[in-house]
Amino acid sequence: MRRTLLVALAASTLSTAAAAQSDLAERVRRYREGNEVAIVRELADLLALPNVATNLEDIRTNARHLVGMMERRGIGARILETDGAPPAVYGELKTPGATRTIVFYAHFDGQPVDSSRWRGDPWKPVLRSGALGPGVRDLPLVSPSGRYDPENRIFSRSASDDKSPIVAMLVAIDALRAARVPLSVNLKFFLEGEEEAGSANLRTILTRHRDLLAADFWIFGDGPVHQTRAAQAVFGVRGVIGANLTVFGPIRPLHSGHYGNWAPNPNVMMVHLLASLRDLEGRITIPGFYDDVAAPTAAEREAYRAMPAVDRQLIGELRLGRTENEPASLAEQLALPALNLSGLAGGRAGSGGANLIGAEASAYLDFRLVPNQTVDRVRSLVEGHVRRQGFHVVATPPDSATRRAHPKIAMLTWSGGYPAARTGLDSPGSRAMLAAADGVLGRSIIRVPTLGGSLPLADFVEVLGARFAILPIVNHDNNQHGENENLRLQNLWDGIELYAGVLARMGREWQSVP
Amino acid sequence: MRRTLLVALAASTLSTAAAAQSDLAERVRRYREGNEVAIVRELADLLALPNVATNLEDIRTNARHLVGMMERRGIGARILETDGAPPAVYGELKTPGATRTIVFYAHFDGQPVDSSRWRGDPWKPVLRSGALGPGVRDLPLVSPSGRYDPENRIFSRSASDDKSPIVAMLVAIDALRAARVPLSVNLKFFLEGEEEAGSANLRTILTRHRDLLAADFWIFGDGPVHQTRAAQAVFGVRGVIGANLTVFGPIRPLHSGHYGNWAPNPNVMMVHLLASLRDLEGRITIPGFYDDVAAPTAAEREAYRAMPAVDRQLIGELRLGRTENEPASLAEQLALPALNLSGLAGGRAGSGGANLIGAEASAYLDFRLVPNQTVDRVRSLVEGHVRRQGFHVVATPPDSATRRAHPKIAMLTWSGGYPAARTGLDSPGSRAMLAAADGVLGRSIIRVPTLGGSLPLADFVEVLGARFAILPIVNHDNNQHGENENLRLQNLWDGIELYAGVLARMGREWQSVP
Repeated sequence: MRRTLLVALAASTLSTAAAAQSDLAERVRRYREGNEVAIVRELADLLALPNVATNLEDIRTNARHLVGMMERRGIGARILETDGAPPAVYGELKTPGATRTIVFYAHFDGQPVDSSRWRGDPWKPVLRSGALGPGVRDLPLVSPSGRYDPENRIFSRSASDDKSPIVAMLVAIDALRAARVPLSVNLKFFLEGEEEAGSANLRTILTRHRDLLAADFWIFGDGPVHQTRAAQAVFGVRGVIGANLTVFGPIRPLHSGHYGNWAPNPNVMMVHLLASLRDLEGRITIPGFYDDVAAPTAAEREAYRAMPAVDRQLIGELRLGRTENEPASLAEQLALPALNLSGLAGGRAGSGGANLIGAEASAYLDFRLVPNQTVDRVRSLVEGHVRRQGFHVVATPPDSATRRAHPKIAMLTWSGGYPAARTGLDSPGSRAMLAAADGVLGRSIIRVPTLGGSLPLADFVEVLGARFAILPIVNHDNNQHGENENLRLQNLWDGIELYAGVLARMGREWQSVP
Repeated sequence: MRRTLLVALAASTLSTAAAAQSDLAERVRRYREGNEVAIVRELADLLALPNVATNLEDIRTNARHLVGMMERRGIGARILETDGAPPAVYGELKTPGATRTIVFYAHFDGQPVDSSRWRGDPWKPVLRSGALGPGVRDLPLVSPSGRYDPENRIFSRSASDDKSPIVAMLVAIDALRAARVPLSVNLKFFLEGEEEAGSANLRTILTRHRDLLAADFWIFGDGPVHQTRAAQAVFGVRGVIGANLTVFGPIRPLHSGHYGNWAPNPNVMMVHLLASLRDLEGRITIPGFYDDVAAPTAAEREAYRAMPAVDRQLIGELRLGRTENEPASLAEQLALPALNLSGLAGGRAGSGGANLIGAEASAYLDFRLVPNQTVDRVRSLVEGHVRRQGFHVVATPPDSATRRAHPKIAMLTWSGGYPAARTGLDSPGSRAMLAAADGVLGRSIIRVPTLGGSLPLADFVEVLGARFAILPIVNHDNNQHGENENLRLQNLWDGIELYAGVLARMGREWQSVP
């Protein structure tokens, strides 16, 4: 997962004591307790393979290793090659009598490392007694007792992001087989090999293998669980598009005493323009901006109401005296489009403050999009609004003639950009998956209609018509992308149970949803 | 002069060919032509004395040397000591029958130097054939012919800022004596020794020597002439006060996807607050801001009309598509109060743009003040306005409890601050000086009602009730404050004539003004 996208959206209101667990969970747990060393070894063997996406041979080695892991389990597996791109891995496990097919997604490439910041080699997995800190000890990878303290952690690149969900899913299959519980769905695997490098070939791969990847539902294993360590299912992400905005003053900085009040001040133009874009309550004031925004569904409204309320805790932690658009909750606000004014720069402020009129002022804006909004329409609305404020809009720095010809000039350059993706909580697949997860957990999994953050899941929706949920398992404090990335063993154990429950029940639940 | 304050306000409309010069100018010129080597040597001897204000002994050496230069001319001179401060130098020359007294101000301390950037030692004056550049040659300081090419330049710290006006004034007295033209005024000298260090003791010195410094008019020799090399007389400066403004968001930066639309964005608060302070035409929109602003006098309006129009040239040079408050001219706009938004900073913009909600945003504002505005009232108007926008105003960073208690917090810290100073162009002294200058030049000196820039001349006005004009002589391209500071000899020659004309005629002109 490219950014820390699955952060705390709710504080757990669940008691850690209570909550009866299902029979299935107990049986999966017994299997795991009898096989902890083997599971840790299988994970460690996978982690020992360097996996930065820019090294194609490394990625291919990982892919072959994954094919082997699947084949040992009777899963039909193969490498999906794309010219010049890191390969992906496909796997397929048919279930007699199953009428539904799900695809499990994870990526097996990892972020580049700065080895000098790691304690040890990023691709020599180390078991330690807990998170790094005073008193933490290195432990033998093979536990002499055959069991591990569940607070032990494995340190290695991709220990959490994203190799361990793959192992959890495969071990879930092993556990179900050991317990003689049949899968309730046909299962496919789509394992990506260049997610951390930006998924440049993802759309091509999905398009080329459209038939192979046909399915009723996608489950994404990427990302961390809730910060309270409770499981969560996430049904959407906001889209995103970034804009660099620059407005222009005199061709060179001027003394503010000798020219101030006469030479147009780009900082002044900028603050007036930006103030016209949104208000203090998060409402975007560009005419028409909300026209194509989908209202939350009844199921989403219900989910917002049911989500653990984290607002009060966050307000204290962040030392806020207000939030935008009170009394709307964080979760409700994140389901709306947003215009974030992420960066402002012009002239000299702070300790280097100088009395000058700068030559230009710049701002970085990011728009977060919700279902039905398109990148193109947002760009067009913004550019139209800037024009209506009297600006000549350009995409490259204006030359002298352009500067002379226009009273106000704004340069807009757009970066990235993809739409939101969301699957209804009340879609049949969503309801089946939620029922399966609730069943194995013995309580309600946290339902998150959408992340505030963004992932390019729209590719799956647009190319494949995918419906999906993100069902993460790893600890939130995993140092994802940084040095000393790690997986807490209890998260792996819990993940095996959650995935086993979904595999065992989702198909059956689906039959009973209307 | 602390900043490049006397820059181009007008392009010359004068023909270089025409313009008959007065008899007096010719007689002064003949004296100078016969004494060029002696004048250059006297200047070079003064320039050879290191003069950074932080070295008290160096300043004292300069002061003693200046006293000697005056005493050789029969001017009663002495050092004005202030405990722990660089001394000033006072001089007095009574003129039998004169009823008016003028004080000539210059400073003899200089900016600190970065010797590594100089061609040669900053305190070993070097004569060169012209400005630095291809083909410029070092020349002997003592010209074998006794004359110099007027485009030759002397390079040394303080060659232009501010030692040469002192030499010009003393040589003007020599020239008048040689021509048997009596001075028309009593003349005092007030030569400051710590201007470049911020004049921390100036107010104390003026207050202590109030009686000694009593006079009808002050002439400041600081600063450069017009960029067209034409002489100008400047009758005012704007006041200035700077404000650092900071507004606060969450205690740490947040991911804009996960918190945008909910956590208050300080950049957004900042742009709305700043947009409420002034409009795009330079008009300050803080209620009451213009209540105590003096309207321009008839003489000032006339001066604006008569000033060489530089707007069109500057608009082209600066590649502007508009100016603020068109069709008002630069000179008119600089006579109004101004709010310059000099710096903006918050989050990350430009190539380092990041999708975040910053913890704070900051801005640097400088206000330029005109007569009747006070620093205290401006501060109070601004703070009142910020409060009315819903901000809790603090002067130091807010602690957690303060952040939690207030929806919006603005930190305002003020820097520097002194009011405008202006002398009417129609005051008797101004008219007398202008008539004297016009007479010796044989044409109208450029009349500048006020600089847009700022100098703390209000000290002279408030302590001594001074009326004043700035009457600069040095070239505008003098590298003032930087390396290789220099004086173009023709500027010194012209300055001697201008000062001689004022000394010879200002008293007599004064008798004839109503």
